[in-house]
Formats: sequence, structure tokens, C-alpha cells
Amino acid sequence: MGSTIGRLFRVTTYGESHGEALGCVIENCPSGMPLTLADIQPDLDRRRPGQSRVTTPRDESDKARILSGTFEDKTIGSPIAIAVFNENAREKDYSDIKEIFRPSHADFTYREKYLHRAWRGGGRASARATIGVVAAGAVAKKILREKAGVEIIAYVSQIKDIVFSGVPDLANPNAARSVIESNDIRVPDASLAERMTRLIQDTRQAGDSLGGVVTCHALGVPAGWGDPVFDRLDALIARAMLAIPATKGIEIGSGFSSVVMTGSEHNDIFEMQDGKVRTKTNRSGGIQGGISNGMPIEFRVAFKPTATISREQMSVNERGENVTLKVKGRHDPCVLPRAVPIVEAMLALVLADQFLLSQSVRFEDLRM
Amino acid sequence: MGSTIGRLFRVTTYGESHGEALGCVIENCPSGMPLTLADIQPDLDRRRPGQSRVTTPRDESDKARILSGTFEDKTIGSPIAIAVFNENAREKDYSDIKEIFRPSHADFTYREKYLHRAWRGGGRASARATIGVVAAGAVAKKILREKAGVEIIAYVSQIKDIVFSGVPDLANPNAARSVIESNDIRVPDASLAERMTRLIQDTRQAGDSLGGVVTCHALGVPAGWGDPVFDRLDALIARAMLAIPATKGIEIGSGFSSVVMTGSEHNDIFEMQDGKVRTKTNRSGGIQGGISNGMPIEFRVAFKPTATISREQMSVNERGENVTLKVKGRHDPCVLPRAVPIVEAMLALVLADQFLLSQSVRFEDLRM
Amino acid sequence: MGSTIGRLFRVTTYGESHGEALGCVIENCPSGMPLTLADIQPDLDRRRPGQSRVTTPRDESDKARILSGTFEDKTIGSPIAIAVFNENAREKDYSDIKEIFRPSHADFTYREKYLHRAWRGGGRASARATIGVVAAGAVAKKILREKAGVEIIAYVSQIKDIVFSGVPDLANPNAARSVIESNDIRVPDASLAERMTRLIQDTRQAGDSLGGVVTCHALGVPAGWGDPVFDRLDALIARAMLAIPATKGIEIGSGFSSVVMTGSEHNDIFEMQDGKVRTKTNRSGGIQGGISNGMPIEFRVAFKPTATISREQMSVNERGENVTLKVKGRHDPCVLPRAVPIVEAMLALVLADQFLLSQSVRFEDLRM
Amino acid sequence: MGSTIGRLFRVTTYGESHGEALGCVIENCPSGMPLTLADIQPDLDRRRPGQSRVTTPRDESDKARILSGTFEDKTIGSPIAIAVFNENAREKDYSDIKEIFRPSHADFTYREKYLHRAWRGGGRASARATIGVVAAGAVAKKILREKAGVEIIAYVSQIKDIVFSGVPDLANPNAARSVIESNDIRVPDASLAERMTRLIQDTRQAGDSLGGVVTCHALGVPAGWGDPVFDRLDALIARAMLAIPATKGIEIGSGFSSVVMTGSEHNDIFEMQDGKVRTKTNRSGGIQGGISNGMPIEFRVAFKPTATISREQMSVNERGENVTLKVKGRHDPCVLPRAVPIVEAMLALVLADQFLLSQSVRFEDLRM
Repeated sequence: MGSTIGRLFRVTTYGESHGEALGCVIENCPSGMPLTLADIQPDLDRRRPGQSRVTTPRDESDKARILSGTFEDKTIGSPIAIAVFNENAREKDYSDIKEIFRPSHADFTYREKYLHRAWRGGGRASARATIGVVAAGAVAKKILREKAGVEIIAYVSQIKDIVFSGVPDLANPNAARSVIESNDIRVPDASLAERMTRLIQDTRQAGDSLGGVVTCHALGVPAGWGDPVFDRLDALIARAMLAIPATKGIEIGSGFSSVVMTGSEHNDIFEMQDGKVRTKTNRSGGIQGGISNGMPIEFRVAFKPTATISREQMSVNERGENVTLKVKGRHDPCVLPRAVPIVEAMLALVLADQFLLSQSVRFEDLRM
Repeated sequence: MGSTIGRLFRVTTYGESHGEALGCVIENCPSGMPLTLADIQPDLDRRRPGQSRVTTPRDESDKARILSGTFEDKTIGSPIAIAVFNENAREKDYSDIKEIFRPSHADFTYREKYLHRAWRGGGRASARATIGVVAAGAVAKKILREKAGVEIIAYVSQIKDIVFSGVPDLANPNAARSVIESNDIRVPDASLAERMTRLIQDTRQAGDSLGGVVTCHALGVPAGWGDPVFDRLDALIARAMLAIPATKGIEIGSGFSSVVMTGSEHNDIFEMQDGKVRTKTNRSGGIQGGISNGMPIEFRVAFKPTATISREQMSVNERGENVTLKVKGRHDPCVLPRAVPIVEAMLALVLADQFLLSQSVRFEDLRM
Repeated sequence: MGSTIGRLFRVTTYGESHGEALGCVIENCPSGMPLTLADIQPDLDRRRPGQSRVTTPRDESDKARILSGTFEDKTIGSPIAIAVFNENAREKDYSDIKEIFRPSHADFTYREKYLHRAWRGGGRASARATIGVVAAGAVAKKILREKAGVEIIAYVSQIKDIVFSGVPDLANPNAARSVIESNDIRVPDASLAERMTRLIQDTRQAGDSLGGVVTCHALGVPAGWGDPVFDRLDALIARAMLAIPATKGIEIGSGFSSVVMTGSEHNDIFEMQDGKVRTKTNRSGGIQGGISNGMPIEFRVAFKPTATISREQMSVNERGENVTLKVKGRHDPCVLPRAVPIVEAMLALVLADQFLLSQSVRFEDLRM
Repeated sequence: MGSTIGRLFRVTTYGESHGEALGCVIENCPSGMPLTLADIQPDLDRRRPGQSRVTTPRDESDKARILSGTFEDKTIGSPIAIAVFNENAREKDYSDIKEIFRPSHADFTYREKYLHRAWRGGGRASARATIGVVAAGAVAKKILREKAGVEIIAYVSQIKDIVFSGVPDLANPNAARSVIESNDIRVPDASLAERMTRLIQDTRQAGDSLGGVVTCHALGVPAGWGDPVFDRLDALIARAMLAIPATKGIEIGSGFSSVVMTGSEHNDIFEMQDGKVRTKTNRSGGIQGGISNGMPIEFRVAFKPTATISREQMSVNERGENVTLKVKGRHDPCVLPRAVPIVEAMLALVLADQFLLSQSVRFEDLRM
């Protein structure tokens, strides 16, 4: 279980950090959409290790191949299978953790659940398992952008206690992306980027790790996406975000800060703007009653500090002995910069599904 | 879409605030389990309006009926249909909102999505739609308690800025529940309960509303529940919680506070305790790599202040005119006390499903 | 498992023959469709027992109630819950089968699967469990008829060795239905109806039962419904039909008779007719490669003779003893006449789902 | 839609006849099961083209690769991705059908549904799309054989009017398989095999094609698999079988022949055999009330003659013109021999899913 998401735009991912390949199968992608690797590879490159000074030096090119589902560079309505073959799987790096459970990592829980587990590099629990998510997300983004006018923009808004508290100018999405992508952190502020980079490098030097916050916006989502009860749009987004490794929380719109406000302070007042119903404020984060209201969707995702650190820690091993652990190998001291495209991809999967579902909601709109 | 949850313990809910009935159908509840209304009604009573000084005075007995799925007071493996018929549906209360969108409520988004909507009392967006959730949750709790030894305990830990910062003694779940249920707020501290009650009453008097936080624990969950990638246990819990009306965020274990810690500060160190692998701390909230680790599951859910307030507000109507709105009728000034059984029920749905799924995970455990 | 069908037009049924109520919940029915009991009751009346000389004398009015999902006689996009409360449940009729497994009935298999079972009247295995199917099917038919121009017509084409080998005139669906519904058998030939009726009455007199064939057509299905591989339209229809109690086989179009033909004899030659691509013959039964081709969909379903007969039979009981069984009570000597609306309803569920799915197939057709 | 089957043992297939690769992703295969290519390749070899005198000469080795889901030759509970890369895709063979719809083939319906289609070799409608089915089926068979003692045996029982009317000795499944696999037809009778082979060769020579029947048995299925209503075991089998290209019908047990019997003739009488409840006859085909009864499961599947023939035919083209078509290329004159492993695989997918589902049916059997 757990490797599939979506009702209509349905994505199944597969692959472990040190298996032969990782990837995804996308079912029910609409037919006739132009699609080539040029649509997919850029986001994989934003996710791949070894891309900058603040990520793991494990170097993987993560080149994708489309195995099925397109013909003459267009989708044909058949499942789109995408694969990235593993290249740089140094086995020796993981011998030290073969029998020792890394604290706050998935080693122990996978052993308890499956008994037999792929201990090299975290197996299915590795962040590499998000390759399929990012590849499918790139396809989802294309549908959203070209047919629904929806743009998704995420960025790092906090590393430890260094907080980006501004409001990025998203009026021009591509310009906003240029600013965000212009630094290794993916924070929309160059000077903060420098401070964050130094903090990450110092922390890595100290054998430790850092957490942070990714903020994400979706622009152009029309009113009407999401469903009552279990598939409220905020519920689906929360599920998708907490499905990203190392996440510990999410807040939509005003989030936890709403708790200390009264209703009269918190309510988003409706008003007419250019003939459209809009809200003066957006504490709802673009979602009311579980359904989008046409305002920007906004949420924040908390990432804990990376569990794998090189500093010595106490732990236990498979034989139930208390032991000392010192992890070698190449790890991200802070996953935040690489988490940005993953957050975007997860949101794209949720929204593309909603877009397809929206085609059959109203009786009067049904077409032969 | 959106009215079904679960893969094996699968629940579909139905009903609007002012329709004929609300309820649920539970598919795949194991056969041969003793089940009567006595298992279900108590949680519905904890959820029902009119139960105390701090809830809406709308008085509904919310008496459940079991329409199918049991025979001689035991389940038979067939769908269990449960219905609560509406009694106290005063139509006149809602005439003022027939054409005006209440701020931060679902009126506008439902109109945009469905065009034709049940404007009385919120229809499907009403908190009454959680009746089916609570009824099904009661069945789920029974499975969990009797076959897995799992106990779920939720309580109010914050109303506006009044915070319960203690750690309730959960060693004896029933004793803990007695403390929590002994006051109208469902906070495990009698003196805080009084302060919170007064704050709610004063706020109601002022025509305003309040938000807060519900904290929830699941005790006895064994290691191994949850799945990689999209069905991580934290992801499924997040989805279930943000599917509750008025929620704005969730954090698991250390949550957003993890962000400012380093890995060496945050990691939960494994150690042997009585021959079992346990962690010294529980910043993971009982979940690592998306799978339960045998420690208590812990999370916090943020509820915004109730959107429907009696104070006058600006808004727009269905004809696109800016108007003034003054809502009459009977509303909860603060949903937190009644949200406690809903949070528990949602968690029970997620965990009961995981329990059933856990029966077929390991090859060596499969039985004829 | 097993009580839900459909991806978008998703129906969950519930109820046992002698429980409190039976019915269904329809999720994702498009909003804004006029819907009242007048749309649903007629098909329930065609299915109900006691309607004619050839059915069981157990008399149930099977009056439906809509518990949710409509507002002012229109759908609102919320789950439509429909219930039929049981009235005429004579308990004494079933004491003789409490402990004895009726041959070729579900008594034994339900006991083996669930251990605890509702032995009165077959419980969930009873044909009464199709009430929810027929109710939901009536809603599906309305969508198909009003928005897709699809008409479904089924009839009895064989009772034992009395065969209707003609081709009914379906050019005017309502006229065709008048002919079919004008006799108790639902065979489109009045003189055959008389012979079949006498055969059924004689067989009932002899304490025995009969099987037969229902033929079904769907007219107006456009090309393009159905999906490759597991959800081929013929596969989905086959599943839906063999989900009807007492069915033993299905053939689409030429069916088993195709086996003795060569490809050149069997192929349906394409030709242009009035500017449209049509086939000269319709051995494909309207489906090619699993997808509808715009020709009428045609298939035949085999029903075995009713398992419950009043003639004395050998069997075994719950204690593993060989015993003699003589079933009292009121049973259909031949289910065929009442199976006609069930076949139609099952097909309607499949086609309505495909109609909704068809709204999001092509990239170029996606709408904001 | 349509490329996924199963609730717990969930299989998604992908791939077109002339794409880069075809294969499947298996979710939720139990962990700790020994699994290598040696378990999968033999069935792919039974399915592959070019294996004998009676199949298409298109020669594909169809060598599988396991991309994920195993570690040190055992499953780990993660998705098992299997891929077969296409080798022998002669493009020139298909130029003649680029714009002409082959009669009774999927060319027209795919064009109508998707507009943009992979016209080479049938694309997703090709029988090559069953590669993923057969690969996944081999994994399913292993689970069934090793943990449930279930053996699946299929064979050709009819080619055109040459009928195998015997009852093969299945007491020793491996011996039965040896007999069946000892001839190119996979009929359990060597002399019939010769007659059938000659008929196929003669028909190919004449530019024509043949249909036939595959009979399938599952031995060792315990009582209790299958679910009421929509997921009756016969319904699920019917869906799986009619999901195989070129199928036109299925009958379970007595099938269409049941129609002319009375209930007293048709009923399978229960009796005690060696302390177990068995039936004297097996007209039920091992399934009663949709649930297996412990007797062998038996059914027959009708395959139409192959649609693609080399004889000249009339048809229409994409521009709506009546044209003459003469298909070149390499086609099976009769798919029956290669259909045998596909029928087995489809049944294995259904039964493995039921086996996993059976682990969580009874309350008293649930385990921590």
C-alpha cells in the first residue's frame, strides 16, 4: 500500500535508493498533450543530489526515460511509465548501518513492519523515493499550467531560526522563480540565502543537521476544487505534504496563528473586485469548507532536521544491544533546498487530480 | 467524491444538516464482533449539540439506528449502515443566509462548485456531517481496543490564549478520560476549564467566536502501522484531521518546534527498555519514516475561530452585491469541546484501517 | 469488500433480506439534476416480489426514501442515500434452514467465510440485496438518458428451452418497453409469455425451479467508453452481470458462437453510413478493443434455475451431518422476470461511470 | 483508467506494442518472499511470440528485469516494478494500417476515444500489453502455491469446431501441466493437438484466423474467497477474463447449459466426505453466492477469431473513405495457445488478492 495517489490523475511510484531504478506510472493523463523529457528533467534536476554547496555530494544525474504512454511526443491516454536508473550506489557507505537503527530514521520501523528490508541507503524510505513524485509532478504541472492557468511556487522560508518574513512578489511567476532559484537555498532573498548557506555549512562541519519551513503558493486555482468531508482540498494537501520525508507539520493560511484570534478578527470578508467575489484577507489560504475559493492557495510545511547525522549517537542494533553509532556516507545536512521541488510536485499531483475531477461535477456541464 | 475513507475498514458518510438523515456505511468490518447501539451512542452524545453551557443550544438527540450489518448483536461482515434522523431543523433560522455568503464559511465555495446547494444550515458542509464519522469511529475504536489494545484519548489543550501546558497522566486511559470528560471544555484541568468556559461565554455574549487546539494521543499502537510514500501514517492522520471542519493545521510530535532544533538535539535515541526497543524521547510522535514505532502517537490540531458569528459583518450576496450580514440562529461560539470526539473518531478510522491492513504484510505470516 | 462499484459514479449498497433496511449511497452524482422518488420507485416496483403470477408471493412494497443528497428536488453533489425499510419479514419461514445448508445456495459459503451469519432469508446473499443496485441504477439511467441519450433495454429471451429468437424492434425504446412490460415474463412476445408463464407455474407446482437468459441492449452509447486492459467495457459489464445472484455466464455480441467462425466470417466490416463510421454487422456487440464503437451494445446473461426449491433434497447441516431438507417459505420459481430491471440497473451503473469518466479523457477538451 | 487491478495485491501495467518497454508495478506483495526472475520468466516465455509453429513469427525474447521491490532475492514490501524492453519493432510493417481501421480491431475505438493514438501494432490494445499481466501473475501464482496451496491450470479445450471434451486428470498438477505443455496448442490430448495445429496452419495459409475456448481450473482454493454483491468471485473472474483481448464470453461451472436444467437437476448436493463438506457435483464451478466453496473453480472463456487477417477486407480510413485493406505483417492466426498463460495469470491476480483479503475477515482471527 501507499505508493499510489489520486483518483483520476493517478500516480504509482516505485523504487528504492539502491535498487535498479526508481520512477512512476501515471494513469489517466489526458491524451493528446505534448510531452517529452524536456518537461520532466528540469524538476528532477532541481531535486537531484550533488546540485549545490548545501546538498549531499552523492552525485546522481537522475536522467529520466519515458518507457510508455507517449507516441510522437504526445500522450496517448495510456499509462506513462517513467524510470530513472540508479548509477552511483556505493555499497560500502552503508555497511555501518546494516544492523544498527539510525535514530529518528525509518530503519527500525521498516524492520518491524517488513522484517526483510533493504538496509542500503534507506531503501524505500530514502528521499530518492520522491523521484517518481517529482517526475509525475512535472507532468501534472504542465496540465495545470496549460489548461487551468495554475502556477505553483514554493520556496524556503526558514532554516532553523533564520526566517524569511517577507512576502515575495508572485505577480509574475517566472520572475518570482528566477529570484528563488538564483541561490542554493531557494529562499527569495539573496542576503538571507548567504546566511542560511553559511549556517548549513557550519552545521555540516559540526556533524549535525538542520530543519526549516517551505512555503508554497498555488496561483490561479479557480473556485470549486476539493470535496466535502474526507477529500477537502486542505486535507488532501496535508496528506500529500506529510507524505514527504522529514515533515512534521503543515498549516494552511493562518494555520496555528488562527487559534488566538476571534472570529471577527479572523474571518475573510467577501467583497466584489472587478466583478468577481474576492476576500479582503486570505487567512483561509484559498480554501473554505474544504473547497478552493479562487484566492491563492497558501500553506507552510515544517521539516525536522535531517535524522542522519555524522556526529556519534547512541542507539540499538538488530540484536537488541545498546550500541554507539557513527554514520559515514554522504548526507544532506538540510533537506530544505531540495524539498522545494518535492513540495511543488506533491501539490501538483493533488491539484491536477482535482482539475480532472472538476470536469464532471455539474449536471448541466456534462457533454457527450 | 470525498465521502469515503479507508482501504479495508472503508467508511462512506452521507447527510446534510437539514436533510432527512445523516449517517455512514462501514464496509469490511470484521465479522463476529459484538456490536450494538450501546457501542455507538456514547460518542454521538459527546458530539451532539446542546450538551453543555458552551455549545449551540440547537438540541438534537442524535439517536442512531443500525440499519444493516449485524445479526443477533454481532457483525456479519456485511456493510454496517447507521442512520441518525434529523429532528430539530428550524427552517426560519436560515432565511437570512439563503443568498448571502457567510465570511470564511463554505457558502460561497459550494455555490461555485455545485451551483445548486442546500443553503440551510450549511448542508453537507455543516459539522453535522461528522455524525457519520463519529458513528463509524466508535466501531473502529472497539476493534482497536478489543483486538489491538489501542486506546485513543483527545482533549482540548488550548482555547484562544489559555493553554494547557501540562502532560496528562494517560497511564490509566479510563481515569484520564474521566478527568477530561468531567468538564464542559474537555480540558484535563478543572481550573483551566472554568477560565475557558467563562471566556467562551463572554465571547458568545459579544457575538464573536474562538478557536483552539485539540491534542490527541493513541496508546498501544504497535510498531509497523503505516506505509511508505503516500500512505505514511502521519500523512493519513493529517488528511483525516484536516478533513474536520474549521481545522487549519496539524503537527505531529515536535511539529513546527522541530524546525529550530539541530538533528543531534531532535533525534529520538533508541534504547532497550524491558527487552524492547524504545526511544528516550518522543519528538517523532510515535511515527518514523511514516510507520509507527511503538511509542505513543501524539499530535496537535489547530481549529480556527468559528466562522459563523452573530456580530454584523460585511459580505456579498449571490447577485454579486456588497451587503451587510447579521446571522441569527444557534451556533457554537467555539467548536473545540465537540471537536474532541471527532478528532478521536477520525484517528480511529485511520488506525482501524491500518490494523486490518497489517494482517497481510509479511509473507511468513499469511495463513490459509 | 464488495459492496462498492464505480470510480466516479460510485455506489455502495447495504442491507440484508431481514435486517431493518436495505439501500445504497451514491457518491459523486452530478449536482443540479432534478431527482425525486418518482425517478426511482418504478424500477423498484419492477424488481419487487409479489408483483405477478410468476414471482414469490412474499409481498413487499419496497417503498424508497431519499435520506440525503437532494435539496428542493435537485441533486446537490453530496452523497445520495436511499433506503427501503423491510416490512414483511416472517421469521418463522426460515427456521428450517437455520442449521442446514441449502444446496447451491450461499448458506455454506457465508458460514465458512464469516462464521457468524444472518441465516434468515439468505441475509446479504438474498436477491433483496439488489434493491440498492436497482435504486442507484435508476439514478444512473436518468443521467444517461438525459445527458448522453443512452437507453437501456433488457428482456427475457429464454426460459428453460423456450427461446425468443426474434429481434425486438428497438427503434422506439418506449414502444419496445411497452411490449416487454406488457406480460409477466418480460419477454417481447405475448404468445411466448403465455407458454413461459405456464411452464413456470407447472414447475412451481412440482416444487422445482427454472433458469433462463436475459438479453440486454444499450442504445446510443457513443464511441469511446471503456478503457484498455482491466477496465475494458466488456470486462466491466461482465463483472457487473456476474455480480447478480444466480448468473452463470455472459456473452457479448457473438459470444461463444464466435468460436466456430473464421476471422473473415466474424469481422465487422466498417463502412460509412450518413457520414459516420458504422459496422455492417455487430458481432462485436458494440465493443472493440474494450471500447464502445458507437453501435448498440448487446449481451446475454445466463441465469441458473433458482437454488431454493421446495422439493426434498439431501444436504448437510452445521454439525456436519448428512440430512434431508425440505424448504418451506416463499421463493421465486424463476428469477428471470425480476432479473430484467436488475440487469438494466447494473449496466446503467457501469455506463454512467464511463460517461462521467469520458469528461476528462482528452487534453484538448479540458475546461476551466 | 483501467490499468490497475486488485485491492491489496494491486497491479498496474503499462506499455504499448512499439513503445520502449512494457511491464507492471505490483503493490503490496507481502514482504520476505523469495523472488527472482526465475519465478517470472517461464510464464513470459509461454506467452511470448515466436515460440512455436502456430504463433506469430515476430520474435521477441521478452526478457524481464526487476527494477525494484526485492533485496537480496526477497521481496521487501515495496512496489515490485518489472520491465520488458521491446526489441523487434519493425516499423515498416504497420504503415498500411496507419490510417485504415482494421475491422473488429481497436484502431477505430482508440481513435475515437483518444484522438491521438499509437497506431503501430495496436499500441496499448496489442496483446503485448498482457506482458505486465503475465509477469505479475507469476508472482501471484507463487504466493498462491506456497502459502495457500492453490494451483491454477488452464488449457485449450476448443479450436473452431475441434473440441476437447474429456476431463483432464488434474490430480497431479505438474503431470497435468506436462501433458498440456507437451504440444504447441496446449490442449491435453496429443492427437487433437495435431489436428488443431494443421487447422491453424491451413487457416493461416488461407489468410484467415480462428477462435476457440480456454478452460481453466483452480485447485485448492479454500471455502470463503470472494465477497457479496459487486465483488463476487465469479464477477471478479469474469471481469479479469473479459479483460483479455479477443474474449467474447465466459461461463462458470455449468454456465449457459444450466439454463435448460431445473433446480432439482442443477443443484449441487452437499455431503460429508472425509469429515469435510463437499458437493456431489460441481455445477457451481466452485463458487456459491459469489464465494468459493472449497470445490475446484472451473470456467471456460470464449475467444473470437483473431481480428487481424491478411485476407483482403473492406474498411474505412481516418478521412471517412471506404477503402480496401490488406494487412501485411506478422500476426497470430489463432491466439488460443498463447492465451493459456494469460488466462492463468489473470486468475492468479484475482485469487492472490482474495487470499490477502481473507486475512482480515473474521474478528476472532485478527492478530496484533
